[in-house]
Amino acid sequence: MYAPCVAHIDLGIDEHEFPGISGLMRFRPETAAPLSQLADVLLRGPSTLTRGERELIAAYVSGLNECEFCRDSHSAFAAAQLDDGFPLVEQVRADKDLAPISPKLRSLLDIAAAIQESGRAVSADLVDTARGQGATDLEIHDTVLIAAAFCMFNRYVDGLGTLPAADPAHYLEAARRIVASGYSS
Amino acid sequence: MYAPCVAHIDLGIDEHEFPGISGLMRFRPETAAPLSQLADVLLRGPSTLTRGERELIAAYVSGLNECEFCRDSHSAFAAAQLDDGFPLVEQVRADKDLAPISPKLRSLLDIAAAIQESGRAVSADLVDTARGQGATDLEIHDTVLIAAAFCMFNRYVDGLGTLPAADPAHYLEAARRIVASGYSS
Repeated sequence: MYAPCVAHIDLGIDEHEFPGISGLMRFRPETAAPLSQLADVLLRGPSTLTRGERELIAAYVSGLNECEFCRDSHSAFAAAQLDDGFPLVEQVRADKDLAPISPKLRSLLDIAAAIQESGRAVSADLVDTARGQGATDLEIHDTVLIAAAFCMFNRYVDGLGTLPAADPAHYLEAARRIVASGYSS
Repeated sequence: MYAPCVAHIDLGIDEHEFPGISGLMRFRPETAAPLSQLADVLLRGPSTLTRGERELIAAYVSGLNECEFCRDSHSAFAAAQLDDGFPLVEQVRADKDLAPISPKLRSLLDIAAAIQESGRAVSADLVDTARGQGATDLEIHDTVLIAAAFCMFNRYVDGLGTLPAADPAHYLEAARRIVASGYSS
């Protein structure tokens, strides 16, 4: 009935129709609910960081973790919510130190990069630098938790051997849904 | 009013009274809610893995990530729910290959160790071995997500510079609460 199972476990869905985390969410709705709520609060809830900036942090960490599905999904979600769209996302992923972003956002991405390595890699200096660029305690908190959460999501998606989307249009369509309705709908 | 702030951000609480994630949960209740729900589903919800086994996976991954607060918390939570208590938890953390656990649980811990490194480190061989030892797809899924979730929790706790508990009795008292009431209460 379905295409041959490619993931490490039988998700009971067409993996080409539901790539990456979308198949996992259908397999285990009990965990999908809090995971979606966490993504909604962190990436779309009230914040002094824009939705585009927060998705950019998610895309950046997913790129460092080499998780193709999450990297390309959240790059599309960031691009859809940033004035400068895909070109800016690609510049940040290629070299954030040269990308035309605010010093504050750059310092938050530095914290996110440390988190990708280890929680213990976040130094007081990194935090002081972000604070010096105007980052609030809540922005620092949320950056740490977004980066940490994508260290979870990336491992979840790749650790179960799910497929990335075969067609990049999948990520653009997902971006339209997320921008319109969020993660929990 | 409070002891000097030690964490990277001002959590607005006495960090000695609320060490590790407990201070972060109070600082940001909007993210605390889905995080607690995720822990409840994964570590305490209906499962063919015992609560003790699932807490052991959490303690093991937290040890690999060298997150003292999570490692000692979940070691206490595991010990409180395993027949062999702390001695077994310490044997698993010291050398799981020599610890008196089932081949199935050992193979799931092997998957958890791979996840701690990277989602891409989970090979089909590791999954096949677990399946050969009797692990179900749902047990493999939940092991991957527990290990991935603790790669988030560990980074969250250490990335914001929170304190571990000053007194090991804190973890025993927390274990009593968790065993009685769960993570969301």
